[in-house]
Amino acid sequence: MKIVFIGSGNVATHMAAALKASGSEIVQVYSRMFGNAGKLARRLGAEPIDDIAQVYCGADFYIFSVKDDALPGIIAQMPLTGGVWVHTAGSIPISVLSPHNDRGVLYPLQTFSRDREVDFWDIPVFIEGNTAETAGLLRDLAETISGNVHYLSGDKRRVLHLAAVFACNFANHMYTLASEIVGEEEISFHLLNPLIAETAAKVAVMDPRTAQTGPAVRFDEKVMRKHLELLSDPLKREIYSLLSKSIHNISVNQ
Amino acid sequence: MKIVFIGSGNVATHMAAALKASGSEIVQVYSRMFGNAGKLARRLGAEPIDDIAQVYCGADFYIFSVKDDALPGIIAQMPLTGGVWVHTAGSIPISVLSPHNDRGVLYPLQTFSRDREVDFWDIPVFIEGNTAETAGLLRDLAETISGNVHYLSGDKRRVLHLAAVFACNFANHMYTLASEIVGEEEISFHLLNPLIAETAAKVAVMDPRTAQTGPAVRFDEKVMRKHLELLSDPLKREIYSLLSKSIHNISVNQ
Repeated sequence: MKIVFIGSGNVATHMAAALKASGSEIVQVYSRMFGNAGKLARRLGAEPIDDIAQVYCGADFYIFSVKDDALPGIIAQMPLTGGVWVHTAGSIPISVLSPHNDRGVLYPLQTFSRDREVDFWDIPVFIEGNTAETAGLLRDLAETISGNVHYLSGDKRRVLHLAAVFACNFANHMYTLASEIVGEEEISFHLLNPLIAETAAKVAVMDPRTAQTGPAVRFDEKVMRKHLELLSDPLKREIYSLLSKSIHNISVNQ
Repeated sequence: MKIVFIGSGNVATHMAAALKASGSEIVQVYSRMFGNAGKLARRLGAEPIDDIAQVYCGADFYIFSVKDDALPGIIAQMPLTGGVWVHTAGSIPISVLSPHNDRGVLYPLQTFSRDREVDFWDIPVFIEGNTAETAGLLRDLAETISGNVHYLSGDKRRVLHLAAVFACNFANHMYTLASEIVGEEEISFHLLNPLIAETAAKVAVMDPRTAQTGPAVRFDEKVMRKHLELLSDPLKREIYSLLSKSIHNISVNQ
C-alpha cells in the first residue's frame, strides 16, 4: 500500500513505523514545519513536504494525524486525490472528511510518546468507514499492523476516547501528583513503581470496583483528615477530597 | 521466628503467608471475628483467637495489622508480652505502640486483594524501630520476605502513604470511572487494558510529567468541551474539569 501521512506527531510516528515495517510504502510526510516532516520522513524513506498542494495524488491512503483543532483546516486545503482519506482521532466524526468520497477512521487506543517503543500488534485499533467497502479496506490495512482490530461507530468511539482520558491521562496525572508529593520529601518516586504496576495489573483480571483499596473505600476519616493536613497545595487538597468522595459514593452504591 | 498476627485482613494475610513461606512460625492469629481468625490461621497452621487476653506471650514479634482506627483500642487491651510490637500502617506513628518497650513498623508499599497472589519479594518494605536494636531486628525479619527493604522515618512514611493514595487508590478509581463510562455503551472495559498497562509501564522509565498525553496537556478545548457534554454524571464532570485544570497547570509551569 502507498500511504501519505498528514502530520508528524506521536501517533503518526508510531503508526507510520508499524505500517512501513509490515510492508506498506510511506510515500510522503506532510507537516506545517518542514523540519518535523523531514525528521519523520527520513526514518521512513519518504518525501517530506510542508506545502499541502504538493501532496502526491496516487496513494491508497491519506492518514491525517494532526491536533484535532487543526484537522478541518488542513482538510479544506487538501487537493483532489484518489484513495481513502483517514483520520486517527477518537473524538472527531468521520464526516470531517466529507470533502472526499472514500473516508474512514483508524483509531489506535494507546498512549504514544516519541522516544518510547510500543508493540503496535497489541494495540486495539478501531476502524470506521463511510461505506462497507471503505471499512473493508481499512480493516485489511489495520490488520497488517494490529492483532486487535474492531469496527466501532463514531458515537461509541468518542465514548471510548473519553474513557481513555480517565484510564490513561488522568491515571498518569495521579502518578504526577504522587511524584510531586514524594519529591518534596526527597523520597524516590521509583519506590512507587511496584505499586503502580500491580494497581494496573490487577484490573486486567479484576473489576476495578473490587480492586479498590485505601482510606476512602474504608471511609477511614482519621487517615483522610491527616492526609488533607499534609497537603499544602489547595488544588491537591481539592482533588483528594473530590476523588475520596467519588470512591466512597461508588462503594456505598455497590 | 515466632510471630503473632493481630488482624486478619489483606495485609495480614499476604504478609503472614510470606513470613511462613520464608521459615517463620505464625503461632496465633487474632481477629475480633473468630471466623476470620480461623480462616487465616488454618492456612498458616496457627491458633485462631478472638480474645486478646489469650495472646501467647512468648513470641518474637506481634504484628498489628488492623484498620487504623482500631489500632489504639486493640493496643490498650494487649496483655504484657515479650518480643517486638510492630504495626503495618503508613499513616500511624510508631508511638501508638508506646505501652510496649520494643516497637517498630513494617510498612509494605503495595495494594493487596485477598484472592490475588503477589510476589512479596518485589514489594518495597519500610521499617522503623524505636531503637537501633529494634530496627535491626525488623530489618532482619523484613529481609526474609523482601529484597527491597528501606529504613524510613514516620514523618516520611506518612508522606509516602499519601503519595500511594494518589498513585494507587486514585489511579484505580480512574479505571473505575472509565469502566462506568464504557459500560454505559456496552463497550468492553478490557479494550482499555493495553492502554492502562502501557500508561503504568511508561512511568517506570519516564517522568510522569513527560509521559502526560491527552487533550488537557495539549489544552485542546474543543475536545474537552465535547467530553464534558458526554458526561451526564455531575460528579464525573467535576472530576474531569478539576483534573484537566491540574494537568494544564503543571504543563504550563514545567
